[in-house]
Amino acid sequence: MQALVLTSDTFGITTVSDPVPVAGETCVKVLAAGLNRRDQWIREGKYAKIVYPAILGSDACGLTDKGERVIIDPSFDWGDNAAAQSSGYHILGMPSQGAIAQKVCVPTANLHPAPTHCTDVQAAALPLGGVTAYRALMVRGALQPNETVVITGIGGGVATLAMQMALAAGARVFVTSGSDTKIERAKQLGAAGGVNYHDDAWPKKLEAMAGAADLAIDSAGGRVLNDLTAVVRPGGRIVFFGATTGPTPLLNLHRIFWKQLDIRGSTMGSADDFRAMLAFVNKHRIIPVIDSEIPFHDAVRAFDLIATSDQFGKIVITMS
Amino acid sequence: MQALVLTSDTFGITTVSDPVPVAGETCVKVLAAGLNRRDQWIREGKYAKIVYPAILGSDACGLTDKGERVIIDPSFDWGDNAAAQSSGYHILGMPSQGAIAQKVCVPTANLHPAPTHCTDVQAAALPLGGVTAYRALMVRGALQPNETVVITGIGGGVATLAMQMALAAGARVFVTSGSDTKIERAKQLGAAGGVNYHDDAWPKKLEAMAGAADLAIDSAGGRVLNDLTAVVRPGGRIVFFGATTGPTPLLNLHRIFWKQLDIRGSTMGSADDFRAMLAFVNKHRIIPVIDSEIPFHDAVRAFDLIATSDQFGKIVITMS
Repeated sequence: MQALVLTSDTFGITTVSDPVPVAGETCVKVLAAGLNRRDQWIREGKYAKIVYPAILGSDACGLTDKGERVIIDPSFDWGDNAAAQSSGYHILGMPSQGAIAQKVCVPTANLHPAPTHCTDVQAAALPLGGVTAYRALMVRGALQPNETVVITGIGGGVATLAMQMALAAGARVFVTSGSDTKIERAKQLGAAGGVNYHDDAWPKKLEAMAGAADLAIDSAGGRVLNDLTAVVRPGGRIVFFGATTGPTPLLNLHRIFWKQLDIRGSTMGSADDFRAMLAFVNKHRIIPVIDSEIPFHDAVRAFDLIATSDQFGKIVITMS
Repeated sequence: MQALVLTSDTFGITTVSDPVPVAGETCVKVLAAGLNRRDQWIREGKYAKIVYPAILGSDACGLTDKGERVIIDPSFDWGDNAAAQSSGYHILGMPSQGAIAQKVCVPTANLHPAPTHCTDVQAAALPLGGVTAYRALMVRGALQPNETVVITGIGGGVATLAMQMALAAGARVFVTSGSDTKIERAKQLGAAGGVNYHDDAWPKKLEAMAGAADLAIDSAGGRVLNDLTAVVRPGGRIVFFGATTGPTPLLNLHRIFWKQLDIRGSTMGSADDFRAMLAFVNKHRIIPVIDSEIPFHDAVRAFDLIATSDQFGKIVITMS
């Protein structure tokens, strides 16, 4: 079969042996494969324990031999503790073979019917971003209807899915971005407003616009975490699923204890989280926002695109 | 009456007018008044919005005109949100008259029967430290029986009460201190072990001793918060009710989201928290540890003592 293969010094489409299913596995003919920042980080060598050669990709919509259209839950071996993944937890794509290939074999228990209201591309945009957004927003964030939610860095795959889910759950959503265009896109999709974080006064502007928020969903970390402690109301929650700007310098603990805030880390999600996410997406007929569809032969360009952080929504590689 | 009065340049026992109760208030003849670090911070001018002259003290055991032996819930105007105090929240002692006086008048609703298993001094040690410890440990920390809890800075009034409550709740308790003597005292009281935080390897030593903790209770903040993210298990909780060492430099967000940790701020407590704390103390017949009893005429020395941080348990001023 053909697959996008990363070695320590090459990255391109190569002919490799077809994967062979072991007991309990089902093979899927990939129709579309969604991209995540993790894939680009691995390409850049910025990930722990990279094993070469690697076939990347955590997200796929495809067909089984029986013709069932499925998506793959990318989480393996979460373990039996709902509160946190086990030390053996890993996800589809490096070290196991990933989805940016013509065929991938995974445990049959990880297959779920693709949402019938989504195209192949839309369904392929859902798995890892969807479960990460759902766990951050609904499980760790415990979002309640009519709450006010701030989602930072709108346009990112997880942030955009989180916005769509929060809106479906009946929340008021405000966003931040470094791009006014992205803020406008978010408002077209239902956000009540947004502020540009290149303006140092963004926390105050956001508060003037939104009032004190009940919940903030972030993956920037760094100084933004301090800013968010000012943005959320007393007793409010901040959930973060990443820290792209690094550790927080001088976290203001006094404000956190005086305001009785909760700061909660979150990452990816369990099989239960995935099932709950999928049921929620089906119930509310959420259609993931697609930034671009890139044909398989041009797959490296999809990585170049996600590296720019210019996208709004998901970048998906189409296989046919 | 006689009271300990702080002005911008004096601090000593002075004769002042007797307080006059307004509607809904009851006057209490103070038998014993517990000291808190807050009192010393106000003496040092290190508190927001200090109003002079001030009669300090948030904790009292005393007698009503009817001869009822009571303790005072020091919290006023928490508001109706269990998750956080209102902006009008304040506590007994600056700006309202505090407990280090022969007499104090407070809303009758703030009076509760003193625990019958405690002496006047022990009962006076309970209110502010007890409600702070209870909220941090049981409400914000959601301690479960058989969990492993790490309590930092043992010997401090709140930390020591938190240890006693955690033991009563059936938890395994480990402590930290800068003093080996305090660690030994804690073990005599039921702690399973402890480590001296002057040893830079204390987090690893604690983990070797205790395994991964479910919950940590802290008021040091600063670098200790980062250390505690290593000490608690994946999915664990860190609750802090103070930050005596200041903001946290370079908080390790990656570890927090990967381990799915909760970091929760807490301070003091509501009227409901106070009632729950008192019921818990009565049920388990918890007797607050008393470091020293200082007679009223020598009250300034009680402040000098708490400033040293050498105490183990509460410092209480006796009025008769």
